[in-house]
Amino acid sequence: MQQITGARPAVDRVASLKAMLAAGLGDRLIATEAVRRQYASSEGHHGEHLPDLVARPTCAQEVQSLVRTAANCGFPIVPYGAGTSLEGNAAAVTGGLCVDLTAMNRIIEVSAEDMLCVVEPGVTREQLNAELRGCGLFFPVDPGADATFGGMIATRASGTNAVRYGTMRENTLALKIVLADGTLIGTGSRARKSAAGYDLTHLFVGSEGTLGLIVEASVRLHGLPETVLAGSWPFETLDGAVRTVIATIQAGIPVARIELLDAAAIIACNRHAALGLPERPTLFIELHGSQGSVHEQLDFIHAVGAELGGGELARAVETEARSRLWKARHQALPAARAMIPGAVTWVTDVCVPISHLADAISRVQEAVARAGLFAPILGHVGDGNFHVFFVLPPDDREAWAKARAIEEAMVAQALSVGGTCTGEHGIGIGKREALVAEHGPEAVALMRRIKHAIDPHGLFNPAKLFPE
Amino acid sequence: MQQITGARPAVDRVASLKAMLAAGLGDRLIATEAVRRQYASSEGHHGEHLPDLVARPTCAQEVQSLVRTAANCGFPIVPYGAGTSLEGNAAAVTGGLCVDLTAMNRIIEVSAEDMLCVVEPGVTREQLNAELRGCGLFFPVDPGADATFGGMIATRASGTNAVRYGTMRENTLALKIVLADGTLIGTGSRARKSAAGYDLTHLFVGSEGTLGLIVEASVRLHGLPETVLAGSWPFETLDGAVRTVIATIQAGIPVARIELLDAAAIIACNRHAALGLPERPTLFIELHGSQGSVHEQLDFIHAVGAELGGGELARAVETEARSRLWKARHQALPAARAMIPGAVTWVTDVCVPISHLADAISRVQEAVARAGLFAPILGHVGDGNFHVFFVLPPDDREAWAKARAIEEAMVAQALSVGGTCTGEHGIGIGKREALVAEHGPEAVALMRRIKHAIDPHGLFNPAKLFPE
Repeated sequence: MQQITGARPAVDRVASLKAMLAAGLGDRLIATEAVRRQYASSEGHHGEHLPDLVARPTCAQEVQSLVRTAANCGFPIVPYGAGTSLEGNAAAVTGGLCVDLTAMNRIIEVSAEDMLCVVEPGVTREQLNAELRGCGLFFPVDPGADATFGGMIATRASGTNAVRYGTMRENTLALKIVLADGTLIGTGSRARKSAAGYDLTHLFVGSEGTLGLIVEASVRLHGLPETVLAGSWPFETLDGAVRTVIATIQAGIPVARIELLDAAAIIACNRHAALGLPERPTLFIELHGSQGSVHEQLDFIHAVGAELGGGELARAVETEARSRLWKARHQALPAARAMIPGAVTWVTDVCVPISHLADAISRVQEAVARAGLFAPILGHVGDGNFHVFFVLPPDDREAWAKARAIEEAMVAQALSVGGTCTGEHGIGIGKREALVAEHGPEAVALMRRIKHAIDPHGLFNPAKLFPE
Repeated sequence: MQQITGARPAVDRVASLKAMLAAGLGDRLIATEAVRRQYASSEGHHGEHLPDLVARPTCAQEVQSLVRTAANCGFPIVPYGAGTSLEGNAAAVTGGLCVDLTAMNRIIEVSAEDMLCVVEPGVTREQLNAELRGCGLFFPVDPGADATFGGMIATRASGTNAVRYGTMRENTLALKIVLADGTLIGTGSRARKSAAGYDLTHLFVGSEGTLGLIVEASVRLHGLPETVLAGSWPFETLDGAVRTVIATIQAGIPVARIELLDAAAIIACNRHAALGLPERPTLFIELHGSQGSVHEQLDFIHAVGAELGGGELARAVETEARSRLWKARHQALPAARAMIPGAVTWVTDVCVPISHLADAISRVQEAVARAGLFAPILGHVGDGNFHVFFVLPPDDREAWAKARAIEEAMVAQALSVGGTCTGEHGIGIGKREALVAEHGPEAVALMRRIKHAIDPHGLFNPAKLFPE
């Protein structure tokens, strides 16, 4: 596993900051090592980075106050949500003050009329959707984990519904942000569109906590569809499955979800949950709309895929039947993990223009086979986005080196066809060199100038995004 | 009409820059007053601002070179496209070098497979759609004029299709930009989504030429719908029409277009083109999809509106019949202009959360009636965005003052309900105070810091966006 370290604040500075912050936060300022250790790692494979202190503010004013205090001491500030990011995005690489925003978890407003809601950063997507039950609306962005809004916005997260409903980029309307000097600003508005000045909202969406702390967000809601039609569909070849997806997207069929599991992923799911699925590349499809339109759309997709090696297409409308059909998709990550006892998973992603998707996935599969690794592939294929789940024994250095080489080649290949080094996980500490390879040194220099203009002392989430 | 002036470059500096630029550009560097006068105004009401020089570069390298030369002389640079912006966005307020990008009008690539194209900034939307004819794809963003891509991106333009297909924000994938030191950077990628670093693309979309010059853009294309169904539909009251729109959007009906003309606009159209329409608030609707789905959707909308005072709903599928139905919508601006001979139009817009739309429009109508002005209202109502077309005798100072007061009240009201001071026209010179009212001084200060970080000497499009 990769280990990154940096200069940590000296012990006396920690003690001094602790005293100052504790005056306002009381027992919501924590220095106990056992507690700090809970914030030392996330779901990714980037090891442990222990923060010096942990603060649990309960309102924006407390965040402003603690930022001012830490800034006066030149103390690094690392925001933390559900801890489910995958690229070390919230790792306290240089120690510092970890700001756990999960206590700020109020749903401030739901406006069914304007199809939006206002949430604090610690609200999770499942919490919001539970709250919305019964009002005919839902929030569609669904990264694998039950992430917080602060984290999803900070990493420009997406998920299975993005092909139809967009990512956090399209679904974030407005933000409230605490800047490095403690100032609170508002960005965006409740309007669906605006041409009023620089798009600060979208500068903060995906900034991974390096520009300011998100203390409130207004996000779009969507109407629950009249009918949900699910399908699962094995293909003879990966190429046939992906070409079916490409033809579907190009025909403008508004699929809500179209996901791919490769044969290795299906094998893992069968072993894990005795699903008895054909061990072939399989598409999982979901359509949202009127009863007539969803079947019409799936008929179209079926006609296309039947000529490209599609086998038996299973359909379901009722909730339970749909859950059964999609079970493999939902269990893919734990199933993959269970294939090698004690293994660690390293999940990486790229996103390519859709015409290059089949080729990009095949190259990774071949490299994985050559390396003798186990690494199922799962794709949000409607967007050209796919994930590789390396399942690795934690201490097998050779296997980790091979996985790293495959990831590097996968990123290089994605960039060579105009794709991106990460579709939804972000840069964190894991893909900082790839950021430069993707955008070029001049564009990254511009990003650094923006960082410096907004956070001149480099307080927020140090050692992220940019190579040293 | 509003007049804004600033310190212009001295005559000898103009002569010196002229000599330097002419060495590279030859007769594509113009100092003749008659030609410069063509660039002194746009479609808006913001008067004449004569640039000192006009350059017509033909490639990115020429743009880099002229930016370097002008920057060395500290000479302002104002990009110019089709000249169709409405808020003085491309006005050479302090003189300087006007960079006419319309000679850079090559469509570099159309990728039908990846549903995107790459264009130079001088390509217009109609030029692109003509090129796309026959390949089953189209570009949906349609501001009233045949604007250039450079201009549409710079002002974050939208139009009638935005409710379904998004604005320039959603449809711009990647940019190439010449920065103030002549550096060429690339932003974004060809992937549909990315979590790789700061979203520079969306920082430049809507930056109104104040951060850099756009020399290339990759934009999304969409599949031509199988069926297009158009409707026109008069209502007893504006409130009934708007409430029909609100219910349609809230039900998740994917309308491609849903436009409102108020009774004054219909009166102007009848007078202008003898359309014989009922002189009542009228919705113009367009649905895109399969033959079954579009009729099913319009039936739903019809059922809703019939209970809200909707009269006879005319439907059409064939191209010519659809054009007839939509004729009033397409002629609204010239028809309004023709109502007062010799009049100037001042077109302004705001965008509000949709639940406030009927109230916002009614308030403006009442104020217009009280002021004794003629000002039809036209709305992209699916987005909560509406335009007021003040038709004003050019020298009637009192009428202009009344119009300004109505605009200010309209902006204040939009902001009071969480809307924005402009949905699609931008800030330019006309709404600079409104920018501060909308975002607050702290957020605007942050925008200024970003401006300073990217364009430290304030070369690009001076006196725009920010109040003096």
